[in-house]
Amino acid sequence: MSIVRKPFIFRQFYESMTSTYTYLIGCEKTRQAIIIDPVLETVDRDSKYIREMDLNLLYGINTHVHADHITGTSELRKLFPKMKSVLSPYSGGSADMFLDYDQPLKVGDLTFSFLSTPGHTNGCTTIVSDDLEACFTGDTLLIRGCGRTDFQGGSAEKLYRSITEKIFKLPDHYKVYPGHDYNGVHNSTIKEEKLFNPRLTRSLEQFIEIMNNLHLDHPKQIDRAVPANLKDGIIDNNRS
Amino acid sequence: MSIVRKPFIFRQFYESMTSTYTYLIGCEKTRQAIIIDPVLETVDRDSKYIREMDLNLLYGINTHVHADHITGTSELRKLFPKMKSVLSPYSGGSADMFLDYDQPLKVGDLTFSFLSTPGHTNGCTTIVSDDLEACFTGDTLLIRGCGRTDFQGGSAEKLYRSITEKIFKLPDHYKVYPGHDYNGVHNSTIKEEKLFNPRLTRSLEQFIEIMNNLHLDHPKQIDRAVPANLKDGIIDNNRS
Repeated sequence: MSIVRKPFIFRQFYESMTSTYTYLIGCEKTRQAIIIDPVLETVDRDSKYIREMDLNLLYGINTHVHADHITGTSELRKLFPKMKSVLSPYSGGSADMFLDYDQPLKVGDLTFSFLSTPGHTNGCTTIVSDDLEACFTGDTLLIRGCGRTDFQGGSAEKLYRSITEKIFKLPDHYKVYPGHDYNGVHNSTIKEEKLFNPRLTRSLEQFIEIMNNLHLDHPKQIDRAVPANLKDGIIDNNRS
Repeated sequence: MSIVRKPFIFRQFYESMTSTYTYLIGCEKTRQAIIIDPVLETVDRDSKYIREMDLNLLYGINTHVHADHITGTSELRKLFPKMKSVLSPYSGGSADMFLDYDQPLKVGDLTFSFLSTPGHTNGCTTIVSDDLEACFTGDTLLIRGCGRTDFQGGSAEKLYRSITEKIFKLPDHYKVYPGHDYNGVHNSTIKEEKLFNPRLTRSLEQFIEIMNNLHLDHPKQIDRAVPANLKDGIIDNNRS
């Protein structure tokens, strides 16, 4: 039996101010595409690639309501009017469409399925692609780390269960593409994170203690980013 | 016929000061590994991953004598004494071993072959992995760009021929992993660069004109980096 892989387009982009990764994924045959976690500041760059590659951008998916940057979905929709912004129904935010955890999303020949992985926020979602043998974990699972759990409905216990009971059940060789990395590392694998993630190789109790004692600074953009991202990245200037 | 892919370990790292990409590639079965274009400043990070993944680092390959950063091969060899530094015989620099353009390098179950791709410097090399369906182009081919040709024996004509007559003959779907990117884009494909690289979609004559009129600044670290990199990254403090 020959294994025929569906040809796909894949680009990982980086926004240096907030260390955010954005992913552009397309079906090579039909040119249908999605973008995951676009950033407002890099809409020009991202849209250049979408145009060059002649992609039909169908969905702009935010893995969650971000606190550290403003999503580019609102601006991208102006440039690509067919694009629907997509968010978890558990996020509390608005979007053109809410993702369905029971129903995979078809994008040309590619299929994306979704895991509800709360803990960093209630609406956090991990996007799984069997075609790419990869998952896009947003801020839930980071490389050798994980998202913080001290605001926006965060819960260390929920995060631990989301990662260990859902994400870590994916095949060992699946690539992990996170929402951020602060150390210049671009991707990992399920196996590596199971073995080497210093937080997730602990017990639930130890994990909760670690997360309760991180003493992190308040995210710089939170007061501007969260209200905007709850509205799909639309900035309400009357608020400021 | 079933296609059995050889399982491999792959990590793309980023050094933000010089926008350099470093690649760590290993054979999953034997744990033998290579590192491509390590940077002195990130030896701690890179060695942590090498140790965590229990890799037997055999080769530290520099795609060329860098002018913008000091290679980490000399420091890495102190930490991993079995590692041999590798460089092109056309580079004019010293190394533990010179690569053989006629002879693929075996690293566990993985095989790496080499293309001599002069133009940015005389010793520039593109590393090809059929197992990863990828090439590592150093500063020869960058994403939507290419390396400069105005110093260190650079030649716009040689660079154009290296890319169009050698790199662009690789399969269209092969991933292109460059030595740098200044725009937050991590990889490309041969097909995309053939179609969209604004410099390489021109004639040789147009390309030479573009390259002769870039008016780039002198690389900040060149006076320190080139002498050190000619000696495998060993800094001669008597010089300064």
